[in-house]
Amino acid sequence: MARDERGVTAQSEDFAAWYNEVVFKAGLVDRGPAKGTMVIRPYGYRLWERLQAELDGRIKDTGHENAYFPLLIPESYLSREAQHVEGFSPELAVVTHAGGKELEEALVVRPTSETIIGEMMAKWIDSHRDLPLLLNQWSNVVRWELRPRMFLRTTEFLWQEGHTAHVDAADALRETELALGLYHEVARDLAAMPVIPGEKTPGERFAGAVSTYTIEGMMRDGRALQAGTSHYMGTNFAAAFGIRYTGESGREELCHTTSWGMSTRMIGGIVMTHGDDKGLVFPPRLAPYQVVIVPITRGGNTEVESAADELARRLRAAGIRVHVDARPQLTPGFKYNEWEMRGVPIRLELGPRDLEAGTALLVKRLGDEGKRAIALDALPTELPAILDEFQEFLLTRATEFRDTHTRTVDDWDAFVEAVGTGWALALHCGTPACEDDIKARTAATPRCIPLEADSASGSCVRCGAPAVYGKRVIFGRAY
Amino acid sequence: MARDERGVTAQSEDFAAWYNEVVFKAGLVDRGPAKGTMVIRPYGYRLWERLQAELDGRIKDTGHENAYFPLLIPESYLSREAQHVEGFSPELAVVTHAGGKELEEALVVRPTSETIIGEMMAKWIDSHRDLPLLLNQWSNVVRWELRPRMFLRTTEFLWQEGHTAHVDAADALRETELALGLYHEVARDLAAMPVIPGEKTPGERFAGAVSTYTIEGMMRDGRALQAGTSHYMGTNFAAAFGIRYTGESGREELCHTTSWGMSTRMIGGIVMTHGDDKGLVFPPRLAPYQVVIVPITRGGNTEVESAADELARRLRAAGIRVHVDARPQLTPGFKYNEWEMRGVPIRLELGPRDLEAGTALLVKRLGDEGKRAIALDALPTELPAILDEFQEFLLTRATEFRDTHTRTVDDWDAFVEAVGTGWALALHCGTPACEDDIKARTAATPRCIPLEADSASGSCVRCGAPAVYGKRVIFGRAY
Repeated sequence: MARDERGVTAQSEDFAAWYNEVVFKAGLVDRGPAKGTMVIRPYGYRLWERLQAELDGRIKDTGHENAYFPLLIPESYLSREAQHVEGFSPELAVVTHAGGKELEEALVVRPTSETIIGEMMAKWIDSHRDLPLLLNQWSNVVRWELRPRMFLRTTEFLWQEGHTAHVDAADALRETELALGLYHEVARDLAAMPVIPGEKTPGERFAGAVSTYTIEGMMRDGRALQAGTSHYMGTNFAAAFGIRYTGESGREELCHTTSWGMSTRMIGGIVMTHGDDKGLVFPPRLAPYQVVIVPITRGGNTEVESAADELARRLRAAGIRVHVDARPQLTPGFKYNEWEMRGVPIRLELGPRDLEAGTALLVKRLGDEGKRAIALDALPTELPAILDEFQEFLLTRATEFRDTHTRTVDDWDAFVEAVGTGWALALHCGTPACEDDIKARTAATPRCIPLEADSASGSCVRCGAPAVYGKRVIFGRAY
Repeated sequence: MARDERGVTAQSEDFAAWYNEVVFKAGLVDRGPAKGTMVIRPYGYRLWERLQAELDGRIKDTGHENAYFPLLIPESYLSREAQHVEGFSPELAVVTHAGGKELEEALVVRPTSETIIGEMMAKWIDSHRDLPLLLNQWSNVVRWELRPRMFLRTTEFLWQEGHTAHVDAADALRETELALGLYHEVARDLAAMPVIPGEKTPGERFAGAVSTYTIEGMMRDGRALQAGTSHYMGTNFAAAFGIRYTGESGREELCHTTSWGMSTRMIGGIVMTHGDDKGLVFPPRLAPYQVVIVPITRGGNTEVESAADELARRLRAAGIRVHVDARPQLTPGFKYNEWEMRGVPIRLELGPRDLEAGTALLVKRLGDEGKRAIALDALPTELPAILDEFQEFLLTRATEFRDTHTRTVDDWDAFVEAVGTGWALALHCGTPACEDDIKARTAATPRCIPLEADSASGSCVRCGAPAVYGKRVIFGRAY
């Protein structure tokens, strides 16, 4: 990161420019050479590893097993499920040559793995005793992006994809819900993102799914980000790949399958949910560093330096992720700005006079102003609570932001106004043509039909036809 | 895994057939649809996750940071380092079409990431203060294989690749040695593989390296497996990609770089180091399950079943990876055979009479014969030591096997005999033509010049010319 380009555009001035500047300047990411690809730099990758560890633990605790399936998929596999190939064809990267020869059948670089995993499930499942089959894979996928945005839409991204097979629809739907629940929990409790879990309208479903569920988060520009999805495939993929089991009665049946994914897109969601004009703000439970110690050592004060290292050691022993910024060539003021921009929740300043008094100055990235002195000896026991409080503060702040930017509307003018700055909760007729009309006029799309919502009926906010779904739909402009 | 195909070919009869049968039947792997690709099934992937966690911890503890670089690399990048492109060209998979169009410049699916990481290092490094830059990536790579073998040579495999940049040769060589040391430690202490660390002869170096270091393990058929490599690149890649830094004196210098990798190939190494005619034998420190409990419940004895679950709970609390095989449709005898084939170190049999006596029958996969009764209450405290002892036993057994199959030879006939069943330690003239001659006659190649070996001089075992290297070289047939 260039040392002299610290400032970022204000969010209110140009949110997209703010986002783009901050992800690069904070050292989360760099541009890859192939169109739309990204390099995830160590600071960004640490965040991903934190998220990955937490999500992986929950996936395993709910009985799923990790496995790994090949990157390269025969082109013909995709064509077996008609909607699936239609959805993904425009985004495929295709290997036509390998080992110095043209291939007889081209191979696509996986955009997702339903097809190749479906092929394997068909081999592995014989009897009802083999079900449910609960698999998960951590992998990279490639979907060619014409309008890439770092983390949000990149040609290659990292994710986990769960793929499961079940005896019947009820069991598969329970699984779809369970996965969505894990995403909801991870977003809310770790990323401090107050997402809304809901079902997608038919026009927004995954290619090949019978129903798609999503968690939708509100970014600080009022737009929506789809942060994780869970799909019930019915027997579509089972029929295409021959995923069958012999039931207790001896009859052969098709399996019901699901798939669900959460990706590096979440990093973009965290950036846009909590960031401000100074830069990033990371929730403590996922922050690469929860605390940065800046020793103030004009001309190299070795006593202060060793006190900073000793403090770091004690904080690490207390389970806190801490970094000491001992770079001799930079001023403390420069470091304060840089770590604010990089979103570290807590900064500790430690100078000779602090050391004499047995204290450090504690500064929070957000939430209250000013510095306060805190005894060095108290830090290992007090910091965990301060970090928890900061985590809680971020969730509360984001929830308030979401709620003040969401309006229940019943007429078109109010709808247009609401989706100009946030979300509209509105009744809808459910027809794709009307969805398209709304999108053309306002750029807003139906984000989801919230799982938890009061029942409501009446007429469509746009066309006046009778509303469907039995409740209001969230509309918003989306990433 | 088909229930009725438990038996495997004897190692002595056909080692290659034994290997191939056991990796499939034990449920480690399945065949992918594209040539030479593999599916890593949950049981195999657990082993990989164990290895990954252990190696990742060591990589981080030695100051390296994880990052992620794009899968797709512009073809022109590879050409910038002449030896590198020459080495990898025949193995490349090439994306020529993406997003529905032919690409202006084809993209190769990474066979390794020196080039794309080199390009980024050039951007990120300005000053000597930015060095050393210590990066690591966990990723998949693709190298087209004409003669694939599961885990050992597959078109796609998983690995970590370390990439570092340094101020000078001395620092880069220290890094190369450090990485080799990590591999040595992981192989010996976790995989119970008594590998020999050494330097490759010039003909066996990585494409673009100044020197290549390796750990070589001996498989139970006497062949060698290269199980991890570490390369010093000199300034070759720095010159090709412009990786420069400004020194303290203000002068611009080229960095010295390294790279090092360990892959899913290690799983094949573990299989072939410890397996026997009954199937796999896993070292406890990496085994997916260290202990399997088989409840003996003719007609469904719920008391025994809950006792088995309760025992599993207590063993888990003691940090032991345990699995209860409660499948009602299979006999205990079937399960014993299956878990022996799948390499679980310890089996506990628990029937109604054992339960009455407050004991279980403990059976080790290897090392001593027979079953012994052990008090249920004693298991949580006694099993860790029994597992450690089993781990130690495997390393000792493999070391003895390696040593009894390695011969110091000074004449050609003895050399031919030695490489027929194991390794030869021999003096060599160091010329590629003589290496080729040896390979043509015996299929043996120089595996490494061991780092720790007595100095020795004399004449080449094959051609009689003066020997180089100052010590004996290990020759063997290799995977």
